[in-house]
Amino acid sequence: LTPLPLLLNRIKASGLKLRFCTNETQATREKFVKKLQGMGFDISVAEVTAPAPAACRILKERSLRPHLLVHDDLVPEFAEIDKANPNCVVIGDAAENFTYANLNEAFRVLIGLEKPVLISLGRGRYYKETDGLKLDVGAYMKALEYACDVQAEVVGKPAKMFFESALAEMGVPPQQAIMIGDDIVNDVGGAQQCGMRALQVRTGKYRSVHTLHLHPMGAIMEKGEIN
Amino acid sequence: LTPLPLLLNRIKASGLKLRFCTNETQATREKFVKKLQGMGFDISVAEVTAPAPAACRILKERSLRPHLLVHDDLVPEFAEIDKANPNCVVIGDAAENFTYANLNEAFRVLIGLEKPVLISLGRGRYYKETDGLKLDVGAYMKALEYACDVQAEVVGKPAKMFFESALAEMGVPPQQAIMIGDDIVNDVGGAQQCGMRALQVRTGKYRSVHTLHLHPMGAIMEKGEIN
Repeated sequence: LTPLPLLLNRIKASGLKLRFCTNETQATREKFVKKLQGMGFDISVAEVTAPAPAACRILKERSLRPHLLVHDDLVPEFAEIDKANPNCVVIGDAAENFTYANLNEAFRVLIGLEKPVLISLGRGRYYKETDGLKLDVGAYMKALEYACDVQAEVVGKPAKMFFESALAEMGVPPQQAIMIGDDIVNDVGGAQQCGMRALQVRTGKYRSVHTLHLHPMGAIMEKGEIN
Repeated sequence: LTPLPLLLNRIKASGLKLRFCTNETQATREKFVKKLQGMGFDISVAEVTAPAPAACRILKERSLRPHLLVHDDLVPEFAEIDKANPNCVVIGDAAENFTYANLNEAFRVLIGLEKPVLISLGRGRYYKETDGLKLDVGAYMKALEYACDVQAEVVGKPAKMFFESALAEMGVPPQQAIMIGDDIVNDVGGAQQCGMRALQVRTGKYRSVHTLHLHPMGAIMEKGEIN
């Protein structure tokens, strides 16, 4: 079995285009990339498609000023966004920031809007950390959806728009790309709905029966031959 | 306008049977009744139908041992219930107990069961307190439902079983009872689905457009003439 960092080097060396797609919302891309570099991956921030930058594009396009219910480490991704007098809520995997007070505060912002807008940086159910399983952003998204009778706009995987922006950044049509990931819904399902082929790897969270959401990192690459 | 405590006295004096139906899950019935007595209501614990005792009946019938995610003040209602080695989760309006850690713990109990059982003491979206709107038990119920892919069994209003047990305790068939309450869904809708007639009062949380859930107390009474 070839270690993943070496495999990725071979893909890059073959001249195929490659892009990393993550639903990571507990850290900036900078921090995320540093972690992967430390594990031996040849990866740069410019090669990463992540929910927070995708959300920022939407916020700018629609003149939305977010109230953020996100992890402290993700806040810098929204540095250039006007957050005064919020007219929407952006929810990410806020982890310890998912307090009773913070959830009530986000709820009050939403319910106070004439037309509540909830943008969610993913729809994961739960994930595993060293100290056990944790509820993911999707669970808290559902709580706010129910309380405000709204449907969240999900900007992470498996949203079609997320894969489309990754493809646009690569300059590759879906038919010429393949998605590789360990999550049957977020990676494989999302890519297929976008017209891509997809490949599920049996590493990470892969289980034969059901699938755990472990903040997966998938990769889209141009189809071709790996040398 | 006759004050509510006086009106209830007249109903009782007329010989009609009366029962108080509440979704209150932030306190024991004892505490709840004391509060109402302080407001001038002639009411005893035996006249109150509330979600926690209804849940206890279900737990006993089905040999379920709950992990409790409820308000501290509600715990005494479950004093006689075996809670060792839990095989279900009971969720109420836990308020400050809705912490990130407590929600993860309840989730881990549920996801660790072969067939997760989630019993919810209500499905309210939110309610108002002096310091603002708060998410109600229904929102957190939805979070756990989504994370575990289960459907909660709701034992408070508007559950049919809840009204049926109140009627059974009164010894009155639904056709001979009327439900009075301020909540169009939990009071009026629930009673009507049970075959009762229902009457919405324009007090408490009543709004012409939408309905706030303010831990309503409704009352079922036998149909007849009030002297």
